[in-house]
Order: sequence, then structure tokens, then C-alpha cells
Amino acid sequence: MTSERRPQISALQTPALLIDAAVLDKNIAAMSAALPGPRLRPHVKAHKCTNLARRQAAAGHEKFTCATIRECEGMVAAGLGQDLLLANEVLDASRLGALVAGGARVTLAVDSPETVKAAAAGGVREVVIDVNVGLPRCGCAPGEAGALAETARAAGLQVRGVMGYEGHVVGQQDATERAEQTKTAMEMLVSAHDDVGGELISAGGTGTYLLNTWASEIQAGSYALMDTEYGKLGLPFGQALFVLATVISSSKEWAVADAGLKAFGMDHGNPDLEGATVWFCSDEHTTFSDPRPVGERVKFAPAHIDPTMALHERAYVVAGDDIVDVWPIDLRGW
Amino acid sequence: MTSERRPQISALQTPALLIDAAVLDKNIAAMSAALPGPRLRPHVKAHKCTNLARRQAAAGHEKFTCATIRECEGMVAAGLGQDLLLANEVLDASRLGALVAGGARVTLAVDSPETVKAAAAGGVREVVIDVNVGLPRCGCAPGEAGALAETARAAGLQVRGVMGYEGHVVGQQDATERAEQTKTAMEMLVSAHDDVGGELISAGGTGTYLLNTWASEIQAGSYALMDTEYGKLGLPFGQALFVLATVISSSKEWAVADAGLKAFGMDHGNPDLEGATVWFCSDEHTTFSDPRPVGERVKFAPAHIDPTMALHERAYVVAGDDIVDVWPIDLRGW
Repeated sequence: MTSERRPQISALQTPALLIDAAVLDKNIAAMSAALPGPRLRPHVKAHKCTNLARRQAAAGHEKFTCATIRECEGMVAAGLGQDLLLANEVLDASRLGALVAGGARVTLAVDSPETVKAAAAGGVREVVIDVNVGLPRCGCAPGEAGALAETARAAGLQVRGVMGYEGHVVGQQDATERAEQTKTAMEMLVSAHDDVGGELISAGGTGTYLLNTWASEIQAGSYALMDTEYGKLGLPFGQALFVLATVISSSKEWAVADAGLKAFGMDHGNPDLEGATVWFCSDEHTTFSDPRPVGERVKFAPAHIDPTMALHERAYVVAGDDIVDVWPIDLRGW
Repeated sequence: MTSERRPQISALQTPALLIDAAVLDKNIAAMSAALPGPRLRPHVKAHKCTNLARRQAAAGHEKFTCATIRECEGMVAAGLGQDLLLANEVLDASRLGALVAGGARVTLAVDSPETVKAAAAGGVREVVIDVNVGLPRCGCAPGEAGALAETARAAGLQVRGVMGYEGHVVGQQDATERAEQTKTAMEMLVSAHDDVGGELISAGGTGTYLLNTWASEIQAGSYALMDTEYGKLGLPFGQALFVLATVISSSKEWAVADAGLKAFGMDHGNPDLEGATVWFCSDEHTTFSDPRPVGERVKFAPAHIDPTMALHERAYVVAGDDIVDVWPIDLRGW
């Protein structure tokens, strides 16, 4: 039995981030079957881990979405810079220009004359027009996209198409409502694309990956590891990410584990623990009902994966109690 | 003018953590005046920064409170290990034992026979009995403290006294209510101390630092940098911590800055921005009312300092627009 020679999770200091290797593999396979090859542009902001991105690339997805300059730099350093889309606006594109000058392909979102100017000044050569499709965040109005594309071309930039994130829709729990709102949003994006041209209509997320048939590529990221918020949507992806903790205190009514709000992204609420109700998280504690004995290990499922990853230096890839790999969360910071 | 030779915050990539040097100095001075020298055992979990701890030591506070083993290790490495209290339970104290063997003084909280056993097995020599004073978290019942102290002494440990954190009280906005609840909690702790003995009655936080006259030392940490949650209490400490961001998109009704929920601890809600209402935070964006022009810099005040620090690699210490120092947030992780 080779497993007997592998390190065990029982030897880990806690809190520790765990990735269930089998569930991760299943999630990646299920997504690749639904959106093969270039139909998916995985978003690395959800995991911030080049080892995980390499698994996605091995499944046929060789172009990626990033949210920060540091994510782009890390992906290029890992040899995954064939076709990166920074799906965000920046006012100083010089670090991206350096990547492009070094041979990477980096396409940048722009939504204003100022961001067009910054892209050109920084040495970026390719852009997409970011279009607001209903989420009050970045993106120009659909009717302004064509003119902005002309501004970009006049600045010497190649315009590869449009992007527009239906972020107000992806978490909608009613599937029919989610489908209808996706249609409304994507009709706005397609209308903008009519004016802009280019090969890309980039949009979507884990919540709309199957519903969004207007986009030429889907920017889903959370599907690989999942969280309890996306877990409510009945998607065919399993929870692969957990935070391992140790029960450090126990009383008649509650127990306390040594993972707290510095180990979990808290914006979607408390993590879940099977067989218990989480009462609250402190900096380095989580108090929950149905007490377990001191020393017992427990596994929490985070409510929001993206900020959870941002809090950890590394993840342990596990098969049952065996640790099969250790992956640095190497795309953190800015 | 030396200030002309200093780097300016306008040159920083965003998001960037800023510490207002003048406000920090005032906060440290105000606390030292109220609780001089050993009356304060500053809690480093609130800032996770040995440079900041060194300022607190220079103000006369040479013993510190930590929440994690890594915090203890980092403080010892920084030469600040004269008297550290790990105000938390651990089941594997071997790394703490190594610090003690190396000459550091580390006192560990225990609240059960299991944690006493772990302390002794790991090579820790000094403990405090952690007493539950009303917050459903760690700590033994006050009536059990004396027996647990005996167990610890029988295991060869020195018992330095008791600790008990009135965490359910420190954020109470009504000052009278806060004072009454502090009294109730501390009477429990003093009663436990009667049974335990020792020189330490360690308790308190920024919200109760003046009210808690029962404790021999106060574990406050947030006072140095502050956050908007503690800002509601009318304490004599100013907001010294901000997240600098750049407006990357602007429309008629809202603007978007490039700092999001990976730059802010979100468990106490959205950050504040003067002159605007924050609508929501996404991973790398904050959308707010009263739009500013693209490219303008904005400064957010986080709602909860501790998890905010845990997300940043470094902080820029500033005097106006001058950067006067760069401090690594070197106590992150576990």
C-alpha cells in the first residue's frame, strides 16, 4: 500500500486548507464535458493557484481569466500566459506591458477613454470593451461600446471583442429567473458586440455556465472547488474545498475549533460544518453546536471560496486522509 | 524640504494599506497614558506587524498577547519575546516549547485537562487558566478553574494566574451597559482567580480598556489602528488605518474603486468612504455612490481591522502624502 508512506492530514497544524483531489477532478471533468476547450476561460481569481490552473489547462482550457495584475504575472511565470484576459480596468498598465513585451498574450478590459489611454500607454496591445450588462460595477453602457472600440483602435489597440459579467444573476437561486435575467443581460452584450466586432463575447460564471449560450466563452472559476453559496444552486459540482481545524475547547452546549474569520472569506456568512450549527466566528475561533471532544478534527466548508483562498499560503491536496500534494496559493496579493 | 525626496502615495499600486503615522503615534500615546507599562499587554492579532509592536514596546509595553503560534514565533524572531501570552488553546505545543527552550518566555492559555497535557508535553513551562466569563467560546467554568490549576501544577507547570475575555461586552455601544456587563464578567474572573492564585488577571480589549479595573493587565490591540466598528464607541483613538484605492470606472450614479473583499475584512460589513455610501464589495471592486473621476485616489476605512491586516503583505506608513516607512505584515498565517 503506497498510501501508508504518504503523510497524513492528522499530522497537519491547523487551520489548514484541504482540496479533495477526487472531487476536484470530477468538477473539472464535468465542466470540460459541458464547455470543452476554448468554450471555457477559467477564472483564476477563484483559486489563485497555478497548480490548479495547470489542471484546468490539462483538461483543454488554455486561456484564462484574471482579476489582478499579480494574477497575470503569476500565470505567465508558471508558463500559462498563452492567452490571459485581465477582466478588470487598470490605470497603470506598465506591468502588463512588460508581460506582453516578454512574449505573453494579455488582453485588458477597458470601459472609458481613460482606461484605453492607460492600456496603450502601458504597452498593452489587445483589449476587450467591458460592457455593463446590469451589475452596477465596471463597464460602459452598451450603446457606448462601439464608439469606445473606435477610440481604442485609434490609439493603436486591437479590439478582440466585448466582455460583460452578469454578476447580479449568477447567484440567483431560482433557475428560471436566472435563465431569464441571463438572456436580458446577454442581449445587451450581443447588441454591444454588433457595434464592436471581434471574436470574443466573454461573460458568465459558475451560476450561468450552461444558461449563457450567447457568450463565446464562459469565465467560470468557482466550479473547480465550490463553496456553500454556489452549493445552493443545484449545480453538478461537488464541494472540494475545506478548512481543517482542531477542536480546542468543548463544553456541554458548544465546542470551539481553531479556524476563524482569518481562515474563511466571511462576506457570504459563516462556514458550514456537517452535523453542527455554526454560531459565530472570531479571529481564530469558530464556535458551533453539537460539541465534539477536544482534539477531534473537523472540516468546514467555506461560504465564499475566493476570499478564503486569499487568506491561505498553501492548500493540501488530499485523497481521504492522505496528503498527495501541497499547492502554494501563489497568486495572492496585488 | 526633505519631504520632496520621500516617495509619494501617488506612486503606489493599489490597493495598498496605509497607516497614518501621526494618528498611530497619538493612539499609542493616549493608551500608554491611560494604561502605562505593564498595565497593558498589547494584542498583536489586531495588526500582525512586528514593526508596530516595536512602537508599542517603545511606549513601555514590553509584554504582548498573541492569538497564534506563528504570532509568537514572529515576535520572538523580532526580539520581542520577553513575555508573550498565547491567549488561546493549542493541542500541539511543540513549536511553543521550542521557543521556550530557545530562551523566550511564552505563557499558554489552558482550559481543559487535554490542553494542560498538551502544554506540558510540548515543553511549555507557564500557563494561565482560561476562564469563560460569558462569551460562548474557550475557557473553563469559573468554578472549575481552581481544580484545573491543580492539574496544571501536578503536570509540572507554573500557573501564572487567569485570563478571561469579555468579548461579548467590548463592542456593546451603550457605555453604561458595557460597564455593567464588564463588572459581571470580571467578578466571575476574580472569583476564579481567588481559587487559582498567581500574579496575572489578564482580560479586556479596546472597548473596555478603561472600564475594566479588575484585570491586572488589559489585552487591547485595535486601539493602535482602529476600525469603523470600534469607531462607533466614542473612544479617544483615531482611525489610523486606510486602504488606498484607485477609481477605475465611473458613471452618473456610481463609481468603482479597485479594492474589494480581498482587501477588507468583511465580517463587520462594508468599509466606509468619506462623502460616499458604499453599495457593495466584489472580489477586487467596491462600488459606491457620489462618483469620482476615473483615476482619482480614495481611502477606505475598514470595518474590522484584524482580518484586514491578514490580507495584506505590507503597510505603508504615511505622513500626509509622503511614505515614511514600509512595514511587512509579518505575523500572518499559522
